[in-house]
Amino acid sequence: MTDPNPSQLEVTPQSRVKRGRLRASYDRELIHSIIDEALVAYIGMVMDGRPFVLPTSHWRDGDQIYWHGASSGRMTQGVVGQPVCLTLTLLDGLVFARSAFHHSVNYRSVMLFGEPEWVTDPLEKTRQLEIFIERIAPGRWPQLRPMQAKELKATGILSMRIDEGSAKVRAAPPGDDEQDYDWPVWAGTMPLERRWGEPEPCPRLTQQGAAPDAPEPWGRA
Amino acid sequence: MTDPNPSQLEVTPQSRVKRGRLRASYDRELIHSIIDEALVAYIGMVMDGRPFVLPTSHWRDGDQIYWHGASSGRMTQGVVGQPVCLTLTLLDGLVFARSAFHHSVNYRSVMLFGEPEWVTDPLEKTRQLEIFIERIAPGRWPQLRPMQAKELKATGILSMRIDEGSAKVRAAPPGDDEQDYDWPVWAGTMPLERRWGEPEPCPRLTQQGAAPDAPEPWGRA
Repeated sequence: MTDPNPSQLEVTPQSRVKRGRLRASYDRELIHSIIDEALVAYIGMVMDGRPFVLPTSHWRDGDQIYWHGASSGRMTQGVVGQPVCLTLTLLDGLVFARSAFHHSVNYRSVMLFGEPEWVTDPLEKTRQLEIFIERIAPGRWPQLRPMQAKELKATGILSMRIDEGSAKVRAAPPGDDEQDYDWPVWAGTMPLERRWGEPEPCPRLTQQGAAPDAPEPWGRA
Repeated sequence: MTDPNPSQLEVTPQSRVKRGRLRASYDRELIHSIIDEALVAYIGMVMDGRPFVLPTSHWRDGDQIYWHGASSGRMTQGVVGQPVCLTLTLLDGLVFARSAFHHSVNYRSVMLFGEPEWVTDPLEKTRQLEIFIERIAPGRWPQLRPMQAKELKATGILSMRIDEGSAKVRAAPPGDDEQDYDWPVWAGTMPLERRWGEPEPCPRLTQQGAAPDAPEPWGRA
């Protein structure tokens, strides 16, 4: 029996990273961590032979990645059983080198390939939406006005196995040509930080009570 | 004669926004402003009938969007003269509603369609790389070790006209069902802020001199 959840994703002709191989990884734990920190995934699909890339929120449960959309929308209908490329990136900083050529960015990105499937069972749909909400606001789900059957029906949820894909990571100072290190210009990296600002109450809020904590893994400004 | 740069992009069957029409816009100024603030663009292409989405840095000059990559890479070779969907998103915050169904995100996104072309003229390539560098660090280009001919040759630059596409914007508090506004749970938005951290000098820096200013439009932490 093959391990259904190996620590390294199998490398396929499609998923093998062509450029910057030194930065490539197929490590499942790394891939999961990048998926979990990113808040927007880009779903690439082919419609009538043409590419479409739609941004969406996503979440992960084990070795599956999930997203949702209107049951009737192209985010869901257009991709079920079709080949999809899901890409997401965390931009961590700008890299200022001594030459324009070696300027770069520090980042962590993931590219996944697969064919999404509907989540159809209402109980499983509800469970996945709970995971989605609890990801950004732990403890919030039981406080919400309960999900209605018509809402659940209108919500399409897609899942895709995380078993073909790769991560790419750059986390390093500038890599200049050896003879350029003394060039008279500042060089280094400028980190990009993501912070949650002060929560802004709904103008129609009638309730007391605290705003959710800042979602992990970033802090509050 | 038609205006070569009208204030509104022409709406085509491909670019017409299907969902959330109220949030859609074809306004050129808005589209340009989102392109200019985003630091990562997602290039969707079709290869062997399958979708690929590659993240990249981009820049804009007038009504053209640009990106670069190795002259021999699939980011460049794979897309010249081929249909491309370029998507980018600024996530501005999370929207906490009274029901799971009405949770949302505030964002500004752009989706563009086109067929990229090579920038071949060496002078124009150099000028575009200067715009790219000056975008993130005004005044830096003349301080750098000058571009070499072999570097320019190894750098592929693509351009695409910004004339088919759309923007989508959500910038609003939660929109709950009328009967839910008194539900006993906090509701509102949590803004996401992007800040530049303290510049980190290259470990091999031998020069005095100040780090670049924090790139616009975000501030420094």
